[in-house]
Amino acid sequence: MPQAVPRPTLQRLLRYLRELERLEAEGTPTIASDELGAAAGTTAHQVRKDLSCLGTLGRRGVGYRVGDIVPTLRAALALDRQWRVALVGAGNIGRALCAYRGFRERGFHIVALFDSDPRKEGCTWARLKVLPMGQLRRTVAELGVELGIIAVPATAAQGVADQLVAAGVRGILNFAPARIIVPPGVQVRSVDLAVEAEQLAFLVSAQSTQPPQP
Amino acid sequence: MPQAVPRPTLQRLLRYLRELERLEAEGTPTIASDELGAAAGTTAHQVRKDLSCLGTLGRRGVGYRVGDIVPTLRAALALDRQWRVALVGAGNIGRALCAYRGFRERGFHIVALFDSDPRKEGCTWARLKVLPMGQLRRTVAELGVELGIIAVPATAAQGVADQLVAAGVRGILNFAPARIIVPPGVQVRSVDLAVEAEQLAFLVSAQSTQPPQP
Repeated sequence: MPQAVPRPTLQRLLRYLRELERLEAEGTPTIASDELGAAAGTTAHQVRKDLSCLGTLGRRGVGYRVGDIVPTLRAALALDRQWRVALVGAGNIGRALCAYRGFRERGFHIVALFDSDPRKEGCTWARLKVLPMGQLRRTVAELGVELGIIAVPATAAQGVADQLVAAGVRGILNFAPARIIVPPGVQVRSVDLAVEAEQLAFLVSAQSTQPPQP
Repeated sequence: MPQAVPRPTLQRLLRYLRELERLEAEGTPTIASDELGAAAGTTAHQVRKDLSCLGTLGRRGVGYRVGDIVPTLRAALALDRQWRVALVGAGNIGRALCAYRGFRERGFHIVALFDSDPRKEGCTWARLKVLPMGQLRRTVAELGVELGIIAVPATAAQGVADQLVAAGVRGILNFAPARIIVPPGVQVRSVDLAVEAEQLAFLVSAQSTQPPQP
């Protein structure tokens, strides 16, 4: 697959994969492009276009073979492997992410947990002991960590990002409500939970016929 | 602002607002469109286009007045008000979201917490007592709850969504890794944390020149 996959295409491919894996678990052998499109919130035409880029073609009257397409899609999306992850920030969000089964199930293993607060040092969350930031660099190298998760307050986020990059991490999932800057060669995805709520609120307001309550 | 704002435009407007509020807190009086664009990951042209839709024009050589544009943008995005939110699911993610300051700071107040597990009933998280699902409908009506957050396992998500809709909730923020279906007039935004990790992993893989490790 080409390196520069547009973000919306990537998101659609991940949604197809979710649906196809669900079908695989159910034992459903095939799916038509219109059904897959409906499940992923898009059209049959878009499904066929996206999947043809992977060299995966459905057959007229049969559709896509679930058992064939799942491994192809997982490989194309670099999901046919495991990732080791270091998490920084043992606050509420950090602790929830440590325990989040969705990460493990999808191949993301949080193998180390860090916090700058000495009072949290040595505490254990989801079988991970909270380590001091001074051990980040060595731990990342020793455990072969490639991805970092930032779950610290906004003001601390850039400093933590710098330390993760210096330790050799290649990608950062940032939950702090702050923009972080990394050098070329390091990838960042930011998840701002309040922005998700704001988008929802806007959609609710926009569709209401009455003026919103004060 | 028109009701049907495309999702990318909405996301950009929210990013501008974040940056403008940061400048306001710092006491910066004006910002040029190219600076605002750089902070929000877009171009000066796009900034001018997006903001002109709000009737907000910068002045050549001066830029946008931060103190004028912040309230305009907040009103246009329906963020000049408070929202009452019910959260269903007192597991790790649900508890972290209850304690998440970012929601309160942006006007989203979680006023009730529900769980179907009788063992959790009466427990208190972030000053909220866990209530049984049987009290959802009455509580939503009594407290004037308009938004719901789903933080339950995938298999339970649709049932919880149905109960929230029946209770009169108008928007749902879904953290369960499941697609939920709601009637017209109810808005849903889904946040799949594992998909965020998968997108990051793909970007890291795509840019690495070496083949990924097995």
